[in-house]
Amino acid sequence: MSSLPTFADVQAAARRLEGVAVRTPLLENARVNDRLGGRLFVKAECLQRTGSFKIRGAYNFLASMTEADRRKGAVGWSSGNHAQGLAEAGRLLGVRTTIVMPADAPALKVANTRASGAEIVLYDRVKDSREEIGLGIARKTGATVVPPYDHPWILTGQGTAGLELAEQAKALGVTLDAVAAPCSGGGLSTGVALGVKGVSPGTSVHAGEPAGFDDLARSLKSGRKESNEKLSGSICDALLAPTPGDVTFPLAQTLLGPGLVVTDEEVLDAMEVAFREFKLVVEPGGAVALAAALTGKLPVAGRAVAVVCSGGNVDHATFIRALSRERPAA
Amino acid sequence: MSSLPTFADVQAAARRLEGVAVRTPLLENARVNDRLGGRLFVKAECLQRTGSFKIRGAYNFLASMTEADRRKGAVGWSSGNHAQGLAEAGRLLGVRTTIVMPADAPALKVANTRASGAEIVLYDRVKDSREEIGLGIARKTGATVVPPYDHPWILTGQGTAGLELAEQAKALGVTLDAVAAPCSGGGLSTGVALGVKGVSPGTSVHAGEPAGFDDLARSLKSGRKESNEKLSGSICDALLAPTPGDVTFPLAQTLLGPGLVVTDEEVLDAMEVAFREFKLVVEPGGAVALAAALTGKLPVAGRAVAVVCSGGNVDHATFIRALSRERPAA
Repeated sequence: MSSLPTFADVQAAARRLEGVAVRTPLLENARVNDRLGGRLFVKAECLQRTGSFKIRGAYNFLASMTEADRRKGAVGWSSGNHAQGLAEAGRLLGVRTTIVMPADAPALKVANTRASGAEIVLYDRVKDSREEIGLGIARKTGATVVPPYDHPWILTGQGTAGLELAEQAKALGVTLDAVAAPCSGGGLSTGVALGVKGVSPGTSVHAGEPAGFDDLARSLKSGRKESNEKLSGSICDALLAPTPGDVTFPLAQTLLGPGLVVTDEEVLDAMEVAFREFKLVVEPGGAVALAAALTGKLPVAGRAVAVVCSGGNVDHATFIRALSRERPAA
Repeated sequence: MSSLPTFADVQAAARRLEGVAVRTPLLENARVNDRLGGRLFVKAECLQRTGSFKIRGAYNFLASMTEADRRKGAVGWSSGNHAQGLAEAGRLLGVRTTIVMPADAPALKVANTRASGAEIVLYDRVKDSREEIGLGIARKTGATVVPPYDHPWILTGQGTAGLELAEQAKALGVTLDAVAAPCSGGGLSTGVALGVKGVSPGTSVHAGEPAGFDDLARSLKSGRKESNEKLSGSICDALLAPTPGDVTFPLAQTLLGPGLVVTDEEVLDAMEVAFREFKLVVEPGGAVALAAALTGKLPVAGRAVAVVCSGGNVDHATFIRALSRERPAA
């Protein structure tokens, strides 16, 4: 694969993922459509193996490595969905994985990652550098570092979600005006853009980000990589990458329309709509594109629009918070 | 259609429902499988149009009526999922529907039913008989009464969920040992049995019921229609039919294995597992078959088992209750 990934690479990833990734459903809801005055489709990636889209890219990465490299194992760092996706991809392909996780990561996420057979190396968020620890393991064992987004194999794997949703819309006889996906480092959004535009070139594709962490939206405006001021402080714990990737940003400039930025309050409202209308459990970071559609930042009126709900790994307390807010009577 | 429905009738219903009913996914979860020592599949009918399987039977019923009858409209009584399914089926087919609902039904359910264009007639649970009101409307207008379960067109429509899940399992190369579905009057469970056994004759099919409302389980044991002592008092508000139907019971005797009975506590636990592992919003009545599998009442160890999660129309407070219970650390 060249360093500039193409639609053909997404198609190849889709063949690798056949029978591995769940072909998640593309759902719509008559009441939501009535309210918005258009057709809104939800690509339910929260129903994916390990509860998020991350298995698509991780599996595609491991499956693309040479047999010799696979025998030496893989290493990654993540406290969240990438950890679980990579560990499970390793289990499925028989590749030994080591995941560097913060010592204060939620016990459930550590347990879930370990349950897939990964070796867990804990680090201290204050004193240690997870990159140094991970790279040290790679040097010592010959394991390959699997990055969370900034690699063609990762983003084309994630792009299979876009290919699927475009095919599913086509099968319904629907031409999508726009598609939006959540964005942290840009692996999902640029991959989805590649997958969607290969099937439906006229569809505009947008990345959704939380307010204060809209590095990609600002970078697309300014034409150069911008960074976020803060490293934490949004409910969207999965979307806090500080700056667009070196591989993903040029693709984003070519493929993506203007960025969509939503507040934590709008995200909590979207999680409640996902619960009440779509019967889906969506985590905060997974709900940003849905929030953009529900608030009209991504217009749905008179159009056909699809949003990726990218994950459902949310703790009980946060979900209860989304369900407990004051809201107007239905 | 004769009064004894067959697999061919389920196949005919599936053709009518093509492009109307969502082909809901059949999901599994590696961690749950590890814990149970077998393969557990969840047929996610909570993702169906109107949030439950009920649209399958209601649409199949209206689509099977003569054109002349359809012009005279349809009437039904329900405070829950059948109301929403029938109203939406009427909207899709252009059949005027009248739904008799209790005056104290949750505002959200009344609003949802009205949003599909149904005319709502409210009655007083204490003073009025909803059957009398509904039959009165039918006499006056010539509208056809659409029963919630005890009719071949209804149960073969519901059976398309079973046909789908059997086909989905087959496509995965899996031979199902057992299937279970929630049961109130028996429309879903007998329909699912017809659909499953047409594809996979060796699969045993079971109906799940809440403790205290296990009229079908006791009827299957005694060989005659037994009734429940109470009419209310389970968290499973959708599963309170007092006795098996005249059409469904003979079918149940032929097609179903022993009944499965679960407590409200087990149902709440199953709703939490659906949230945490499957990322699905399942209502109490929709979770009884899942509860039977998770508690071992329907053994999964060393086997392949599928359960229907039949609906997701649960209010916020009940869902929060399921998520807030004490439970052992993961």
